Amino acid sequence: MLSRGYGSIGVAEICARADVRKGSFYHFFESKQALTIAVVDAHWQAQRSAWTAVLREPVPALDRLERLFREQVEGQRRTKLTAGAVHGCLLANLALELSQQDSPVQERLEEIFAEQVGLVQAALDDAAHEGAVPPPRPSTARSLVAQLEGLVLFAKLSNDPEVLNDLWEQARLLLGVAEDLSPTA
Amino acid sequence: MLSRGYGSIGVAEICARADVRKGSFYHFFESKQALTIAVVDAHWQAQRSAWTAVLREPVPALDRLERLFREQVEGQRRTKLTAGAVHGCLLANLALELSQQDSPVQERLEEIFAEQVGLVQAALDDAAHEGAVPPPRPSTARSLVAQLEGLVLFAKLSNDPEVLNDLWEQARLLLGVAEDLSPTA
Repeated sequence: MLSRGYGSIGVAEICARADVRKGSFYHFFESKQALTIAVVDAHWQAQRSAWTAVLREPVPALDRLERLFREQVEGQRRTKLTAGAVHGCLLANLALELSQQDSPVQERLEEIFAEQVGLVQAALDDAAHEGAVPPPRPSTARSLVAQLEGLVLFAKLSNDPEVLNDLWEQARLLLGVAEDLSPTA
Repeated sequence: MLSRGYGSIGVAEICARADVRKGSFYHFFESKQALTIAVVDAHWQAQRSAWTAVLREPVPALDRLERLFREQVEGQRRTKLTAGAVHGCLLANLALELSQQDSPVQERLEEIFAEQVGLVQAALDDAAHEGAVPPPRPSTARSLVAQLEGLVLFAKLSNDPEVLNDLWEQARLLLGVAEDLSPTA
């Protein structure tokens, strides 16, 4: 699903790859949609553990946020090295592929993205409390995740994780704490 | 394709909806992939006309860019009003759904996004020349389009165009020309 998307994969193929019978599949999952919600939940559970581990490190909040964003870039780089392709973000891939007809999956994705934005928001509030960033707007945390997802889209499309190199610098601009705007190249 | 994605639609359904026979389809298009490239080209041709019209208006470059970004927000708002759903951006939807196996479509999408970034880059260069923004980094134009696409993802997922309300303010932050970082809410 991460590499090929949702719509082009059927239950028959999933069963063939997993070497199980369709009856077994439907014993555990009502539909491909139900399986997808389980996949999305498992994916976010692992990702949330990684996010909260970074966001609990005993360093200033802005550094925690920087580590979190740099870790996302590293993750795309690792996938390129190990799988040969930048798969992007499973949650964003599904968010743009699915539509209203898949609303149970969409609703779950919406909740997960709200959690992601909430984790970033909490770190931002800490950073503002520490005086490291101006008080964030209500939309600031989402703008950071949007920048991440937008750049991951370009990285996936061009199969090139280097697209993400300036992510943290762009996040600092969105936070109003970039120091140097002169060209780097 | 805009509302349902690529993978879940087959040639048979396309033919049924268009009321043509499969033979006619394959007379004009070698495959669904070939049709998709034609769809993407037609979509971008119309969008590019709209973009270049805005970017040629006789106002300062930064104002042209603002109009372009505000027009993208209005476009999502209009779709919500007329179609009842935020469909997002066809090109980004396909970019995140498709994978290496659909490389001809991906390559075309990559070219189109490079054109989009190039149009933004040209306006940014003009704005820098006019002294309205600091000299842009090589990655600045792409960060603006990434911000747009990332927020459009959230707008599509939550079916709420209001998510895009702060887009231009966030673009100004990325450009280093935001004046006021105090909270709006």
